[in-house]
Amino acid sequence: MYLSFDLGGTNIKAGIIDKMGNIIIKQSLPTAENKDVDEILQQFIEISKTLLAKAKLNQQEIQGVGVGLPGFIEADKGLVIKAPNLGWENIHIKQNLEGLLPYPVFLSNDANAAALGEMWKGAGQGCKDLLCLTLGTGVGGGVIIGGQIYNGRYGLAGEIGHFQVNPHEGRKCNCAKIGCLETESSASALIFYGECAVKKGEKTVLAEIMKKKKKLTGRDVTETALHGDKVALEIITNAAYYLGFALANIYTVVAPQKIIIGGGLAGAGDILFKPIIKWFNNFSFENIKGEEIIFPAKLGNDAGIVGLAKLIEQGVKNHAKNSCLD
Amino acid sequence: MYLSFDLGGTNIKAGIIDKMGNIIIKQSLPTAENKDVDEILQQFIEISKTLLAKAKLNQQEIQGVGVGLPGFIEADKGLVIKAPNLGWENIHIKQNLEGLLPYPVFLSNDANAAALGEMWKGAGQGCKDLLCLTLGTGVGGGVIIGGQIYNGRYGLAGEIGHFQVNPHEGRKCNCAKIGCLETESSASALIFYGECAVKKGEKTVLAEIMKKKKKLTGRDVTETALHGDKVALEIITNAAYYLGFALANIYTVVAPQKIIIGGGLAGAGDILFKPIIKWFNNFSFENIKGEEIIFPAKLGNDAGIVGLAKLIEQGVKNHAKNSCLD
Repeated sequence: MYLSFDLGGTNIKAGIIDKMGNIIIKQSLPTAENKDVDEILQQFIEISKTLLAKAKLNQQEIQGVGVGLPGFIEADKGLVIKAPNLGWENIHIKQNLEGLLPYPVFLSNDANAAALGEMWKGAGQGCKDLLCLTLGTGVGGGVIIGGQIYNGRYGLAGEIGHFQVNPHEGRKCNCAKIGCLETESSASALIFYGECAVKKGEKTVLAEIMKKKKKLTGRDVTETALHGDKVALEIITNAAYYLGFALANIYTVVAPQKIIIGGGLAGAGDILFKPIIKWFNNFSFENIKGEEIIFPAKLGNDAGIVGLAKLIEQGVKNHAKNSCLD
Repeated sequence: MYLSFDLGGTNIKAGIIDKMGNIIIKQSLPTAENKDVDEILQQFIEISKTLLAKAKLNQQEIQGVGVGLPGFIEADKGLVIKAPNLGWENIHIKQNLEGLLPYPVFLSNDANAAALGEMWKGAGQGCKDLLCLTLGTGVGGGVIIGGQIYNGRYGLAGEIGHFQVNPHEGRKCNCAKIGCLETESSASALIFYGECAVKKGEKTVLAEIMKKKKKLTGRDVTETALHGDKVALEIITNAAYYLGFALANIYTVVAPQKIIIGGGLAGAGDILFKPIIKWFNNFSFENIKGEEIIFPAKLGNDAGIVGLAKLIEQGVKNHAKNSCLD
């Protein structure tokens, strides 16, 4: 059994997962408001007690703990270099948590953990080389190579949200670059372009929604598009164009077996995926077919805790193998 | 000892390399003109006899054979899917060659083999995650992850020459895409833009060279630039701009420890590398410094045979490890 903590700026998702990747029990609760490291570690301990009790498990049945969080990490050292959403810098999370719980601790970036989850039990089953994208407020990414998370230098691999798709005419991104995928194809991008269209007086149902609510959500744009609104549909199609372009070019570098797209926006379904695949094919070598490569994610919010369980399994096995070969 | 064959459309470079990565003996000879598979395999056998005799080695001292070639491959199967420069399709090179020589055979794309060589004995020593670029007639690339070649689906990983840097206004590439790195930053690109400048009547020493030789080489452009010719220098700087842009964006995906640039053009030195690093920094997150990441290759034409030796070492070791764990 594995114990997973998927730590976000807003919520902690936790769960106990068995060796087959089944979720035995899970729980979600708000992250301590001050984001203090010690307080959050204390939350982890409380949750672990609760989950073990509810699942009627002994401590000995847990083989290890996985922690996923949004930030730059050094996985080997279990070090959080920087996690802006948590306000953390240089936190030795593995060392700290191993002092409090009787298990080995393994650390991952949250998007990478989700990618590993999709590989194990989701849309990437049977693959060992994967690229996963999460289209939410931002655009996150994870890279799986040889069945394992590939972190890259300082955990920077998979920061696909900051791939520049429109470097000359795009909007300025939070990262200070221009025209990143995140400024063109995230939920925030849909909201921005939706509100622009309304302000310009374009004929769209989005105008009525804005009149009522004063602002839009990403879901407003996708739902409106699903109901046939041309302006909303064009906004989605533009987002898909940049995704198709970016993924085709990323494919020349890493050529994964599958590219899996999840997150809130992926819920738009065909109106998003069809143009992504069309443009991916347009910008790829002619014998490469996006239909065989690009798929929607399957695990939703559970991808992180499931992936962390796999990470623990791999970590424990590696440790055993290395001891044996020494 | 390891026996390496770096097979190109023009030449076969072969060598015997020891466990420390030292080249014991090497040889280069023209590839059989008809590029017939059987004839080339026969060349391999002749070369292996010659090299063993010259180095005074017994057959038993060779642990394995590595073959690198320009094409799409399935490394595990030892299958060449397609090698346009050789006119090969669906060739089971491992199986065929193992029937002729008493050694296990390991197959790689040539750019990937060169990347592995640079990791072992060249500019990437001490790294396990690397990206290598070869700037020649085309732009080749190799990806090393976890100290091993990463092939990707159909061996397509590292096809960085077809990363699109100017998809709207660029030239058409051999691959049918528009504005690939290969059309903007290869030796062919320098020649194209150099000849353009001469045809436009721009004031440049390149005009005199063309008058004499009727055409230019990549070296003409780099040498002329090194002597301070402004037109030639601008052509190099443009090539470097696109390299910096592409590498910064590729970095968001794979974030290797180092990016190593070799091939004929890399000989231009600072006039190429300085603007590459400048633009890489410009298009990267602010704390990422190209000075710490981007370096010229060190092994030149030997990178392939040295890398193939490492590939054999890894293959033989993996085989032994798997047998032991079974």
